[in-house]
Amino acid sequence: MAQQLTTAAGPRLVALAEVQRFVRECVAKAGAPDAHARAMASVLAEADRRGHFSHGLNRLDMYVNDLQSGLCDGAVTPRVLRETPATAWVDGCNGLGPVVGTFCMELAIRKARETGVGWVAAKGSNHFGIAAWYSMMALKENMIGMSFTNTSPFLSPTRSKQAALGTNPLSLAAPAEGGDSYVLDMATTAVAVGKIEVQRRRGERIPAGWAQDASGAATTDPDEAMNVGCLMPLGGAESTSGYKGYGLALMVELLCGVLAGATYGPDVRKWMGDEDRPADLGQCFVAVDPQCFAPGFEGRLQDLLSKLRAMEPADPAAPVLVAGDPERAHEAKVEREGGVSYHPSQIIACEELAKSLGVQPMDGR
Amino acid sequence: MAQQLTTAAGPRLVALAEVQRFVRECVAKAGAPDAHARAMASVLAEADRRGHFSHGLNRLDMYVNDLQSGLCDGAVTPRVLRETPATAWVDGCNGLGPVVGTFCMELAIRKARETGVGWVAAKGSNHFGIAAWYSMMALKENMIGMSFTNTSPFLSPTRSKQAALGTNPLSLAAPAEGGDSYVLDMATTAVAVGKIEVQRRRGERIPAGWAQDASGAATTDPDEAMNVGCLMPLGGAESTSGYKGYGLALMVELLCGVLAGATYGPDVRKWMGDEDRPADLGQCFVAVDPQCFAPGFEGRLQDLLSKLRAMEPADPAAPVLVAGDPERAHEAKVEREGGVSYHPSQIIACEELAKSLGVQPMDGR
Repeated sequence: MAQQLTTAAGPRLVALAEVQRFVRECVAKAGAPDAHARAMASVLAEADRRGHFSHGLNRLDMYVNDLQSGLCDGAVTPRVLRETPATAWVDGCNGLGPVVGTFCMELAIRKARETGVGWVAAKGSNHFGIAAWYSMMALKENMIGMSFTNTSPFLSPTRSKQAALGTNPLSLAAPAEGGDSYVLDMATTAVAVGKIEVQRRRGERIPAGWAQDASGAATTDPDEAMNVGCLMPLGGAESTSGYKGYGLALMVELLCGVLAGATYGPDVRKWMGDEDRPADLGQCFVAVDPQCFAPGFEGRLQDLLSKLRAMEPADPAAPVLVAGDPERAHEAKVEREGGVSYHPSQIIACEELAKSLGVQPMDGR
Repeated sequence: MAQQLTTAAGPRLVALAEVQRFVRECVAKAGAPDAHARAMASVLAEADRRGHFSHGLNRLDMYVNDLQSGLCDGAVTPRVLRETPATAWVDGCNGLGPVVGTFCMELAIRKARETGVGWVAAKGSNHFGIAAWYSMMALKENMIGMSFTNTSPFLSPTRSKQAALGTNPLSLAAPAEGGDSYVLDMATTAVAVGKIEVQRRRGERIPAGWAQDASGAATTDPDEAMNVGCLMPLGGAESTSGYKGYGLALMVELLCGVLAGATYGPDVRKWMGDEDRPADLGQCFVAVDPQCFAPGFEGRLQDLLSKLRAMEPADPAAPVLVAGDPERAHEAKVEREGGVSYHPSQIIACEELAKSLGVQPMDGR
């Protein structure tokens, strides 16, 4: 089977359970106990199910490397350092990001059930995958969830020639009626690095407002953008209010690294750099129980989402969406097709990983 | 004195205490008790002190009109409808926005002192002035403050030909050392309407990404932008991630109108329309005590702010700032000059208001 996959030209379809099995075994082989490997598998498979391929299997080798090199400790369990009825300060103890994140969000939800709000900040964490995984944990409890993380420096503050903050994503999920929901999950940079790489592969320019050249001006050259490594904040240049995106990135940093006492801003470990120190990321998790406010939250949200989706679009072929709709469409596609459709290069990378770890390669068709 | 001001060509300097005295007397004459008039005066004077002239004296006649027409009830006091240790649902009872906002933020701070977090949502409110007034109330208590409000429809969701959400601002303030702070206060549209008006007065085009034409495409014509009345979200077009700004505007709406059970989205009263119904705005106020997390929050934030301000700028004449710095510079200017420097047209408008209400005009030099 593995041989077939490697030589095939088209993408391959892998069932979600098989994706999870593969991640679980790889992470366990790299040194994490089964429960922790399962947490990682859930988050990575969910990223691919939602169509965020950059954050799914694509990152597995990074997590495995961090475990194998000892940069991340797969076995540890987070510790609560300080607690009030509505808050907790947590030490992730350099454990796997999904283990820390799941622990913190469960704690936030428990506190929100007691007091209406739970607010948990963690230091000593690692990359936790898609932020929406954690905010969406609140949906099952009919709560509003939020999650934030700092990340390696990539964002150039407005007017600056250098990067100083991460893509610092923020996510908010809120329940509507009949399983519908609002799920915002966005980097506070204009785009993630992956979007620039895609344009480069295609040989196309990038829009002004995505990234800077070495002088600090906007560039439309994807090669230059990748070499300089300075993403512009959401909003782009100062004339189009890029300082607001920069302000949001700093807000996220303040709620993560600064609040939790983790590393922050320019001191966060470089992305894929060769620094041999733990990431010590800061993360923040919030749960709010809408039942503490006006009754009927889910119905009103549903009404608003429906009104927005029904608005007249400029292009009849491109309907108005709300945050979470593209991901929901991808989830339906995965359901329909019976699995996630991967690019052959991803399949090959997974086969190489399987071989190096002595794990059964993914089965697919 | 009034005569001199009206005929003068240049701006006039008015002491802050005199600005407050004038607002207080106008609002009292329009039917609000003194304590409520003082709340309004504090917020409007603070907007002008921070250089946000669109939200200060410039709005006084709107507040006075709403009071005189009975659209807003200047005398009522907000009521708590539901309460938990960390949350409160408040009915503003159609009172003055600054009265509702101050009530709610004081409540949020009180709860944060008890449980670490206070989260308060209000329905039945009115325009509350600058969002930063409320978030900054937390600074005096060494807390992080946040405030949000929905507003009249002006923002066109990505892909839509029509407006459906407000400029929906969000504000976060956090204390640093020695009186320094981080104060983000931003509309989730690319720009506020006022910026387009300024370009129109100057006879200049607007950048693509600020506003739409009737077909839903970006326009650079300020006249067309004003006539159509569809602001683009932060990020501008879909190619530069405008859907993120739209997502943030919807997040604010969800935390305000939807959570509080106020009017929301396209149902919010039109701006300066002739609809004779109360605004019933929704607003949200959050306080978080950083002492519940890692000790030393203010020092770390200070360190980060200092590092950002010290970054090498692309243009040596335009240093890197953090949110709140331009406002702090304006506050220093007001302090230095002994008052707020107003445009003659604002002075004339205030004199007309003074005359119509029978209030002593503002004294200045």
